[in-house]
Amino acid sequence: MDRVYNYSAGPSCLPIEVLEEVQRELLNYKGKGFSILEMNHRTDDYYEINDDAMSMLKKLLNVKDDYEVIFMQGGGYSQFSTFPMNLATKNDLTLYTLTGNFSEKAYIEGKRLTNAKVITSSKETNFNFIPKITKNMVDQSAKYLHITVNNTAFGTCYNELPETGVVPLVGDMSSIILAKNYDINKFGLIYGGVQKNLGAAGVTFVVIKKNLINDKITDLIPSMNNYSVQLSKNSIFNTPPVFAVYIVDLMLHWVERQGGVAELSKIAIEKSNLLYDLIDNSKFYKGTAVREDRSPMNITFTTGSEDIDLKFVKEARENGMINLKGHKAAGGLRASLYNAMPMDGAKKLVEFMKKFEKDNEV
Amino acid sequence: MDRVYNYSAGPSCLPIEVLEEVQRELLNYKGKGFSILEMNHRTDDYYEINDDAMSMLKKLLNVKDDYEVIFMQGGGYSQFSTFPMNLATKNDLTLYTLTGNFSEKAYIEGKRLTNAKVITSSKETNFNFIPKITKNMVDQSAKYLHITVNNTAFGTCYNELPETGVVPLVGDMSSIILAKNYDINKFGLIYGGVQKNLGAAGVTFVVIKKNLINDKITDLIPSMNNYSVQLSKNSIFNTPPVFAVYIVDLMLHWVERQGGVAELSKIAIEKSNLLYDLIDNSKFYKGTAVREDRSPMNITFTTGSEDIDLKFVKEARENGMINLKGHKAAGGLRASLYNAMPMDGAKKLVEFMKKFEKDNEV
Repeated sequence: MDRVYNYSAGPSCLPIEVLEEVQRELLNYKGKGFSILEMNHRTDDYYEINDDAMSMLKKLLNVKDDYEVIFMQGGGYSQFSTFPMNLATKNDLTLYTLTGNFSEKAYIEGKRLTNAKVITSSKETNFNFIPKITKNMVDQSAKYLHITVNNTAFGTCYNELPETGVVPLVGDMSSIILAKNYDINKFGLIYGGVQKNLGAAGVTFVVIKKNLINDKITDLIPSMNNYSVQLSKNSIFNTPPVFAVYIVDLMLHWVERQGGVAELSKIAIEKSNLLYDLIDNSKFYKGTAVREDRSPMNITFTTGSEDIDLKFVKEARENGMINLKGHKAAGGLRASLYNAMPMDGAKKLVEFMKKFEKDNEV
Repeated sequence: MDRVYNYSAGPSCLPIEVLEEVQRELLNYKGKGFSILEMNHRTDDYYEINDDAMSMLKKLLNVKDDYEVIFMQGGGYSQFSTFPMNLATKNDLTLYTLTGNFSEKAYIEGKRLTNAKVITSSKETNFNFIPKITKNMVDQSAKYLHITVNNTAFGTCYNELPETGVVPLVGDMSSIILAKNYDINKFGLIYGGVQKNLGAAGVTFVVIKKNLINDKITDLIPSMNNYSVQLSKNSIFNTPPVFAVYIVDLMLHWVERQGGVAELSKIAIEKSNLLYDLIDNSKFYKGTAVREDRSPMNITFTTGSEDIDLKFVKEARENGMINLKGHKAAGGLRASLYNAMPMDGAKKLVEFMKKFEKDNEV
């Protein structure tokens, strides 16, 4: 089979030119006589990749000098316990908003480690919108306010970042990193798995404002989870996931060649609007998120019938378009259009959706 | 440059046939139209890889049915805090032996989380031997006894596993997994990074006797570190490092094709003896580990002069043999001969060592 269009929520598609570069040099990295998969991490070759990926990420995110990048392992989920360990102790107040299944998971892990409180939630309407946060909702004694910036399963995202006063804003950006033009300098910390917009599963990014690190707290936690330790070792405290960081570095250069976040944000809106326009003008398809909070990354919709949704997934697959089933927490259908999804992938899906509507409307 | 011989302590060399298979199907995994780097983890394609890798590892290790495999992230170092969290609470007695830098690190992390005691150490002689453990040294109320089965930096390994009575034996097997014929059923738990004998950096294996899992303890710890949670989700609790597990699976099949652990153990002894015989019969080179505890994986030696050691590393590199510098904690020289190092790699190094001796002896 030729290459399919992969609308997976993650891991998801990568640019073909990145895959081709990986393939080309897989047996012999830059002519050095060994594979990237065999590269010792305490070598100039790896330091170069690691340093370049860190500085490229800072540059593309346009963060100020007081931010640092850490590469860790375990995915976004591992950060659900790691950032609380680093930023707060057992009795410290920490704040959460519930806007989807992952923000709930973050809250549950945070509650194990801190005095975590939910300040707002859209759970009652199955997370179909982003509740507004006003500054008076943010207790100024809290150690942080956590938000899930893009809700992969429910197809919503923050279009405006909340004002939190002195309370650091912590954001899970797994599914929207480098794809929407947020001012990252408004965050104290962002984190995420790379397997959506930034690489292949296996490495986790953390971007942190340095002054948030408190050694009195971090001295008590396992070294592997300790941001201070990781920073002091430039993310090479122990053996890092060399290959995964290498892919991130290739992806960051690809992002730069596309024109950076500003350009990719525009393209993401254009791609997602192809689908949203069709959905908004259709009586057959129904979007599941409220319009003003819709994500440019994950387009969630349904035909209203579970059987027809399944038929949609099956026929799309037969037409070379895979992974369109919705997340089990949300049901229905979902098309994820991350940065690496070409415009043609969105167009082909729209054509398929039109034909499917014609064939299946009553 | 052609392919070099890579004597790195890890990440290290992989079999060329494994690398070629990865390269061949990198753009199109088994003709399915997407790359392994783009594979969603909640698909039959990934379940197949994951299940196969787990059952192959159990089979090759020859463990009984009451053992389970868990794939996690973070490397062996992450387990230094993870196994204590799962097996003990703050006041529980836990036992450690100090046989190298990594066993010391394991102890430091364990002490943060449990009442950890050192029962024996070879630190006074810079870890050049494995102290004997007799059963009366093992307090039978301890939650576990931890050993580093192979000491990568110092070139020593256990040739006999200690008798621990009812106390579970926990072993770091990062640098000797599938390379020496241990009876794994004598352990309660083994763990390690895969980047030495089992794959590319990015995934960590844990093999655990199921009855060691105590939900009363694990309920209190972060889900990501919780063996019980990971087991209940078959190591797909959150997004796993798909590519790294895929490489492990390919490596396990390669190991099987070589004749399994029994055969690879023999080959490892043969390969390492080529070097040890030369060292033992030389007045120029000096082995740094005592004979009866020498590792078949990491051969540590020195010319006795720091300058000549550095010259050795440099000239070897010029001859296509890389990463021969000793670990900074041990100094001198080190050749790591993991399973993927071909016999010719050991022979070529021996030839080089002979020539270097001739050229440099006084």
